[in-house]
Amino acid sequence: MTMNVLGYAAQSATAPLAPFEFTRRDPRPDDVVIEVLYCGVCHSDLHQARNDWGFSAYPVVPGHEAIGRVISVGKEVTKFKPGDYAGIGCMVDSCRECSPCRHGLEQYCEEGNIQTYNGIDRHDRMPTYGGYSQTILASQDFVLKMPAGIDLKAAAPLLCAGITTWSPLRHWKIGKGSKVAVVGLGGLGHMALKLANALGAGVTLFTRSADKEQDARRLGAHHIVLSTDDAQVAAAKGQFDLIIDTVPYVHDINPYMPTLNLDGTLVFVGFLGDISPMLNTVSMILGRRSVAGSCIGGIAETQEMLDFCAEHGIASDIEMIRMQDINDAYERMLKSDVKYRFVIDMASLKA
Amino acid sequence: MTMNVLGYAAQSATAPLAPFEFTRRDPRPDDVVIEVLYCGVCHSDLHQARNDWGFSAYPVVPGHEAIGRVISVGKEVTKFKPGDYAGIGCMVDSCRECSPCRHGLEQYCEEGNIQTYNGIDRHDRMPTYGGYSQTILASQDFVLKMPAGIDLKAAAPLLCAGITTWSPLRHWKIGKGSKVAVVGLGGLGHMALKLANALGAGVTLFTRSADKEQDARRLGAHHIVLSTDDAQVAAAKGQFDLIIDTVPYVHDINPYMPTLNLDGTLVFVGFLGDISPMLNTVSMILGRRSVAGSCIGGIAETQEMLDFCAEHGIASDIEMIRMQDINDAYERMLKSDVKYRFVIDMASLKA
Ligand SMILES: [Zn+2]
Ligand SMILES: [Zn+2]
Ligand SMILES: [Zn+2]
Ligand SMILES: [Zn+2]
Repeated sequence: MTMNVLGYAAQSATAPLAPFEFTRRDPRPDDVVIEVLYCGVCHSDLHQARNDWGFSAYPVVPGHEAIGRVISVGKEVTKFKPGDYAGIGCMVDSCRECSPCRHGLEQYCEEGNIQTYNGIDRHDRMPTYGGYSQTILASQDFVLKMPAGIDLKAAAPLLCAGITTWSPLRHWKIGKGSKVAVVGLGGLGHMALKLANALGAGVTLFTRSADKEQDARRLGAHHIVLSTDDAQVAAAKGQFDLIIDTVPYVHDINPYMPTLNLDGTLVFVGFLGDISPMLNTVSMILGRRSVAGSCIGGIAETQEMLDFCAEHGIASDIEMIRMQDINDAYERMLKSDVKYRFVIDMASLKA
Repeated sequence: MTMNVLGYAAQSATAPLAPFEFTRRDPRPDDVVIEVLYCGVCHSDLHQARNDWGFSAYPVVPGHEAIGRVISVGKEVTKFKPGDYAGIGCMVDSCRECSPCRHGLEQYCEEGNIQTYNGIDRHDRMPTYGGYSQTILASQDFVLKMPAGIDLKAAAPLLCAGITTWSPLRHWKIGKGSKVAVVGLGGLGHMALKLANALGAGVTLFTRSADKEQDARRLGAHHIVLSTDDAQVAAAKGQFDLIIDTVPYVHDINPYMPTLNLDGTLVFVGFLGDISPMLNTVSMILGRRSVAGSCIGGIAETQEMLDFCAEHGIASDIEMIRMQDINDAYERMLKSDVKYRFVIDMASLKA
C-alpha cells in the first residue's frame, strides 16, 4: 500500500512553505496510520525549514505536534484501532534496546531518536516527513492516545511544548511545596506556568515586560519578577528549586543563578548554543547549584502528561490557522506575536 | 584568659609571610582550644595571602587544615577534653539556625559560614586567624575528632582537600558500580582518586601529561585519559556519572561534557570564575547533563570522611615543611611542584 500524500514543504532554506505531494513509506505491521486533523506550529519547524541548525535535508515537511484519527493499523498493532484519536510528537522511533530506551527515555536513545521530520527511518532509510500533511504514521510504540474529553486542537502543542516542560518538572520532582520559576513566556513558557501550577508548585515568571503580568497570572504564575529590575531579581535570592529557561536565543543566565536555592537547578529547554555571557561558577559553588539541559520527554512520560492535562483541564492557548497561512504564521512567531501557539486546521489543506 | 600567640602572617598582598604575634579572641564556654601540631597548605592560603580574590583583610594568618592537641575546653564543652587530638578545617562558625545549618550543610549557611581565617567572628567581631600559629580555637561544634590510629600529619589535608572531594562524591551518591572521572591531579585531585576508589567506583583521571599515569594508578585511578588527545576523550563518550573538576584556573570543560552519561554531572570544586571558553548547551540538552558547583562539606560530613579514611587507611600524600619555608612552598605550589600537599610541622615555629 503506497500512500501518496499532500502536505506543505520547504524545498530549500530560502523557499516559503508550499504544497508538496509525496510518498509516505509503506506501513509495517506495527504501524498506526493517522489522518492529521490538527498540527501545532513549533519554533523548531521554522528553524528546520530554514536550515538554521545546518542539518536540514530538503524537502522538509515540518510538524511534530500532530493529532488526528487512526485510519488503519498494521496486523501487530494492539494499542490502537481505526477511529481512535491519536497523536505523534517529536519522535517516531529509537533503537528500543539501549539503557535510556529501556527506561522510557527514548529521547536520549544512545543511537539517537528518529525525529518525526527531517529524520531517516531506521528500517527502510526513507526520510521522515512531519505533520503538515494529510496523514502521518509511526510504530504504535511512538503513538500517543488522546484521553477522552481532551480538546484535540488545544492538545496538539502538548506533544512538544507540553512534554518539553513537563519532563523537567517531573524529573526534578516538582510538587506541592516546590518553588518553580519560568524564564520566557512563549509556547513553552506558557505551558510551564500551567503545568507547574497544576502540580501544586509556587510559580514565578521572570519576564522583561511588565505588560505580561495579567496573562502570566491567568496562566498560573503566582509572582512576576521583572528580569530588567535588579532589585526585584535580588529580592528573589535563594527562592527556587527549579528554573525552567524556555528562551530560545542567547541570553544572560547569571542573574538568575542566585535565585536558586541550595541544590537548585536551572534547566535549559529551548536554547541550543554557547552560554553567553559566560556562566560564572561562584554562585554554583556557594550554593551547590546546577545548570542542566532537558530534551522533550519519553513516550510513557508524554502519555502521563496528556492524561494529567485531561484530568486537570489543561491545554495550550492556541490560535487556529489555515495551512495556507503558515508562512505568515512563521513571521508572526518570530515576533512572538502569538498567544501562545499556532495550530493548523488540516481540513484547510483540502480547501 | 587572653592568648598571645605566635604565627605567620601576610601583612599585605605583596609581603612574604613572616612571624607575627597576635591576640586570639577570649575563649567562650563552648570553645575548644587546640595546640596546632600540623597544618596543611592549601591553594586558598596563597590566594588569600596575596588578595587574589579581593577580600583579604590584613594581617592574614592562613591555614585551614589544622590538627593538634586539645589544651583547654570551655565549661559547656562535652565532646572534647584536654589531650584529645582534634582538627579545625575551613569553617569555625555559622548561624546554626538556617535550613542548611540544620541539615549539616554549614558551608552553605544562609548568613555565610565564618571562615577559619580572614573571617569575622559572629560574637565579638574579632578577625579570625588560621592554623599557621601555635594555637587555634573554635566552638566544639566546628571541631573534628581525630579517629584513633590516623596519621595526624597526613590527615591534615583531609580537612580541606579531603572533604572538598568527599562531599560531591557522597552528594551524587557514588559507590560500587559508579563511574567517576577526576580532572586535574593536585591536592584535591589526588584525594578525589583515593576516595572515589575506596568508595568502590570505577575511577578515571583526565590529565594533560602522560607522565602522571603511574602515580595516578597508584593513587586509585583505573584508567587515564589524556585530555589533549581528542580520540581518547571521544572514546570515553557517555561513561561517567560524575566528573570532579579540581582545576583551579580557567580551562575548557566542553570536551568533558559528552563523556558524562545520561543525567551525569560535572562538578567544579576548585575554580571560581567565568566558564571560558563558553559552555555549550547542546550536550547538556541531549543527555540531561548538568554542570554544578560544590563547596567544601559540612561538619558531620567531614567527621564521616575522617572516620572513613581511618577505616580504609587513606590519607593525603604529603611533604613536610618547616614554618620558615612557607614562602618557598607557595612558589613550588604555584608550579604544581608538590606531591601532593605541603604540611607544616608547627614544632618548627619554636625552633
Ligand atoms: Zn517542537
Ligand atoms: Zn535506544
Ligand atoms: Zn583549602
Ligand atoms: Zn546558617
